[in-house]
Amino acid sequence: MASESTLIERVRRKFPSARAGLRVGIGDDAAVLRPDGRGDWVITTDQFLENVHFLRRIHPPRVVGYKALARATSDVAAMGAGPSCFFLTLGLPAGSSGKWLDGFLDGMVSAASRFGLTLAGGDTTKYPSVVIGLTVLGETARGRAILRSGARAGDLLCVSGRLGEAELGLRLILKKSRLARRARLLRKHLHPEPRLALGHWLATKRYASSMIDTSDGLSTDLSHICIASGVGVELWAEKLPVVGVPPDLRSVGLDPHKLALHGGEDYELLFTVAKGLAGRLPRRVGGVPITVIGEMTREKRIVLVDANGCKTELKPMGWDPFR
Amino acid sequence: MASESTLIERVRRKFPSARAGLRVGIGDDAAVLRPDGRGDWVITTDQFLENVHFLRRIHPPRVVGYKALARATSDVAAMGAGPSCFFLTLGLPAGSSGKWLDGFLDGMVSAASRFGLTLAGGDTTKYPSVVIGLTVLGETARGRAILRSGARAGDLLCVSGRLGEAELGLRLILKKSRLARRARLLRKHLHPEPRLALGHWLATKRYASSMIDTSDGLSTDLSHICIASGVGVELWAEKLPVVGVPPDLRSVGLDPHKLALHGGEDYELLFTVAKGLAGRLPRRVGGVPITVIGEMTREKRIVLVDANGCKTELKPMGWDPFR
Repeated sequence: MASESTLIERVRRKFPSARAGLRVGIGDDAAVLRPDGRGDWVITTDQFLENVHFLRRIHPPRVVGYKALARATSDVAAMGAGPSCFFLTLGLPAGSSGKWLDGFLDGMVSAASRFGLTLAGGDTTKYPSVVIGLTVLGETARGRAILRSGARAGDLLCVSGRLGEAELGLRLILKKSRLARRARLLRKHLHPEPRLALGHWLATKRYASSMIDTSDGLSTDLSHICIASGVGVELWAEKLPVVGVPPDLRSVGLDPHKLALHGGEDYELLFTVAKGLAGRLPRRVGGVPITVIGEMTREKRIVLVDANGCKTELKPMGWDPFR
Repeated sequence: MASESTLIERVRRKFPSARAGLRVGIGDDAAVLRPDGRGDWVITTDQFLENVHFLRRIHPPRVVGYKALARATSDVAAMGAGPSCFFLTLGLPAGSSGKWLDGFLDGMVSAASRFGLTLAGGDTTKYPSVVIGLTVLGETARGRAILRSGARAGDLLCVSGRLGEAELGLRLILKKSRLARRARLLRKHLHPEPRLALGHWLATKRYASSMIDTSDGLSTDLSHICIASGVGVELWAEKLPVVGVPPDLRSVGLDPHKLALHGGEDYELLFTVAKGLAGRLPRRVGGVPITVIGEMTREKRIVLVDANGCKTELKPMGWDPFR
């Protein structure tokens, strides 16, 4: 196996390294960045671990590389920030430092290029399983980052895209369904798209009072907004932009509403808008649909309202690594 | 086992969270920081992995928590920067989320308080082994970060503290030597001290032309300075501040010079100083001794010169996770 220096050199060669404000990138004890002092910086860290977040027998290395960075970058989108630099730490089995690593890096290069991210540093070591750590930086204008805590009773709740698509893709793969050959049904699970343009647009226009990305599932992520903001919500079941589930899968118990309410990894943006501003909200931003799905309330509960006006309390049932 | 939110709340309660410039810390999708635009920021990431960097049967959780942060912070010292915020990602077996986690966090709180670091965010997940990721931020005045690449032929090579102490401690523990009961001999291995005050002093005074911390061992870390700077070095064997090895250990083959040349994890500062400035260098800074141990050369090799003037080439033989 190659030395650590050789491996770092291989990584460095794959990624373009120049960026305004990045004074020293890969190869020193630390990266050196020069903030211009005009904006705020957002920083997020994320782990992507073999056998928890991905399975080697199912997920090709390109997918692992792409998705690891996409997931982490989604947190930058959820603040309304524009991505700038990222850092990669990588624990790697000896047998994965050849072709597997090449595929992994190719996937990550493609994500970095798509999201406008520059690799600024990191760390590698040998480990029995693949252990990926990502730190992603982003920038916003001063005071414009959109927090989880800004929702007020009366605000409307909105979500981008469709909900439950990633969970459907995962189920198809795990069930070894013949439908897993349809790339369209797997796209959201394998190649999630952080909603960077929408997040930045919402921050610039000051439309959103609070925001989070749906990484753990609507019911869980919505509870984070409610708790942080000290509010509740009435969620309109009929309005949810639920995943389209092929009829023969519905018959084996895949319910679109359950997938939409509790399925993780969609990486859509879930945000609140003051009622007075909601009229100005377009139906799409940069091709991504926006749907109003509820209204925030004073009562600190998540209540699901069905087509008949019947109300039931909704508990957070999304992904929790410790449950 | 508790939910992820409960666990994050436990972590949050342990660490003080207020810091100038930190607008939003733990608990949102990302932290929000406000750079004042006057200085540069350094950012470093590091992994601390069970069975590679520490062993649970040997290293108590407090030591793991302290050392994980100390190691990562040493890279900030090696840039001459002052530490500011850090981020922790933690993969944790279900059985370690109780008492083990408490000890781990106590060790990390003590390190954070000692180094002046504020926890600004992170991520937790369940994992079969303990997988720790750290991102540490620091600040310097503009353009004052000390890089590996600034050494020039003729500069004098200096090092802080003693070399080989951490390696000696590790060997004593692994050999289950009765000397492992002497806390003094284990201190450097269990509680390394990033040389923050010295690094900052060197950056402020502009004394150092290049710098690195000795994490992988002198021979390896010195090779990083030489390669980055495009120079070589004559290392004076007699001048090395080598670890004091008790006589009965010398007889079983523990050679102080070998420990000093190739032993890892001392986290001392290795730096170069232009000859004209070397006279102004005190023998100690903040109680930490500084020793001149060689001179940089045009010839791109590391040459060890013994007491008789006999020269031998020295190859990097320190720690490499992939070797």
